[in-house]
Amino acid sequence: MPKTLRAALVQQDNKGDVTANQAHIAAMAAQAQAAGAQLLLLQELHNERYFCQTEDSDCFDLAEPVPGPSTEFLAGLARQHALVIVGSLFERRAAGLYHNTAVVLDSDGRLAGRYRKMHIPDDPGFYEKFYFTPGDLGFTPIQTSIGRLGVLVCWDQWYPEAARLMALAGAELLLYPTAIGWDRQDTPEEQQRQLSAWQTVQRAHAVANGIPVLSCNRTGFEPSPNPSDPGIAFWGHSFACGPQGELLAEAHTEESLLIADIDLARSEQVRRIWPFLRDRRIDDYPGLTRRYLDPE
Amino acid sequence: MPKTLRAALVQQDNKGDVTANQAHIAAMAAQAQAAGAQLLLLQELHNERYFCQTEDSDCFDLAEPVPGPSTEFLAGLARQHALVIVGSLFERRAAGLYHNTAVVLDSDGRLAGRYRKMHIPDDPGFYEKFYFTPGDLGFTPIQTSIGRLGVLVCWDQWYPEAARLMALAGAELLLYPTAIGWDRQDTPEEQQRQLSAWQTVQRAHAVANGIPVLSCNRTGFEPSPNPSDPGIAFWGHSFACGPQGELLAEAHTEESLLIADIDLARSEQVRRIWPFLRDRRIDDYPGLTRRYLDPE
Repeated sequence: MPKTLRAALVQQDNKGDVTANQAHIAAMAAQAQAAGAQLLLLQELHNERYFCQTEDSDCFDLAEPVPGPSTEFLAGLARQHALVIVGSLFERRAAGLYHNTAVVLDSDGRLAGRYRKMHIPDDPGFYEKFYFTPGDLGFTPIQTSIGRLGVLVCWDQWYPEAARLMALAGAELLLYPTAIGWDRQDTPEEQQRQLSAWQTVQRAHAVANGIPVLSCNRTGFEPSPNPSDPGIAFWGHSFACGPQGELLAEAHTEESLLIADIDLARSEQVRRIWPFLRDRRIDDYPGLTRRYLDPE
Repeated sequence: MPKTLRAALVQQDNKGDVTANQAHIAAMAAQAQAAGAQLLLLQELHNERYFCQTEDSDCFDLAEPVPGPSTEFLAGLARQHALVIVGSLFERRAAGLYHNTAVVLDSDGRLAGRYRKMHIPDDPGFYEKFYFTPGDLGFTPIQTSIGRLGVLVCWDQWYPEAARLMALAGAELLLYPTAIGWDRQDTPEEQQRQLSAWQTVQRAHAVANGIPVLSCNRTGFEPSPNPSDPGIAFWGHSFACGPQGELLAEAHTEESLLIADIDLARSEQVRRIWPFLRDRRIDDYPGLTRRYLDPE
């Protein structure tokens, strides 16, 4: 495993269809290689518009098997540019059985592993429970030539449990493809609170576990197919932080290829001064597997 | 339960002995009442210097039973000023059995409950494993006239598990008496990373659980009894944040009576837009009760 890792995060707006979006990804992969990156992290469901703004069974046509055409496309880029690539696909596992799945291609193009999004949201404009069956592969890091990657997806980012389980299973780095944005009807103050909360909770996963975090978010406004709905202004602000939650790089709302240098050796030092894993009260944690601890 | 709550946090330096420290606390309680506060949160081990900088069995003389003299002192203040008071004491439970214990006095002076620090640190200058037996009362909120308080202490603040268990047990507010500071031999950059990580991880407990957080830290430099040790520059920066982690009030390094208005009704709204508790994958969380998930 290299001690330092140069990561590139592709924050993009929707180009309209899979061909246009993949052309942009291919251009960014070439740029990432030129910049000396070893890792390329893509945003959630990068092939398409964010189709979960409505519940429409025709949208299942967008799903594809894994491995399948998009895995092959990403594998080709990985090989061509010697990049580990973390992508995010709409996986068709069987008729009527679909997942929100991250794929990891090693730098030789091999499919190193997949992660099926475990926590599935369902809010107005984010009707993911209609489309995605919750993952059944657990919180399992994926071994690659650059290290053991704890890949999680979007809504997972709000759950300290997910980050902790990845860390306990040996993840050296947490990576989040994500697609989160503002309801433009909210006040600027509420929008700022949401953006700050989103970044804070992920930086805290770095702190609590002593490992770096990369988060790659979609950007740009996408109208809803239902004209009475407000659409989503994806807020970008992809970022990388180190094992104390310290920001290393941050995008704004524009399209970006965000480059960040990650010192993987620092995690060892940080965990020595802050040995949180040593002192967990596992004898008193069984309540974490309960829905709620109702008063008796 | 009131919908809004005015909280007062007493961030102080060590005055030399219990009499002087308690005199300061009494003055702050009067000020807090004058400011309209209903809740007074004190810092960790507020009666004394932070004695854990060395391992010295004479320091067990500082411990006292709960209830005991300091509980009585705080109960008197609570009654006199109609304040719920959260204090932090060195509890002598039996010969050779001591705890780092938070006590909660309701506004009528009744001892509403106690919390024994569950996660015990041990680092150079913070030799707490020598002094404190880990708590055996679990993560149990304490019911008071102003709501159900999730009281945790210092090192607990780094553990998302502790915050989550308090929230699952119905805590409406998390409160941390704490004593954390800098090693002045660290670089300014490292000091800033530590302070920021400390605040980030606690604000994230607010975000992940949709409840406010109050954290009251010690301030001022305290030399070590061992002159070859660097001492600790407690960093203050006590703060209050709302259920999206948004800062409501923050002290600097000076002694402060920090006042914060907490809108307890907002938690309900925030949990409706961000229903994290709905989607926890409790079926896949049993690994959280393991020390580490060693590769098979």
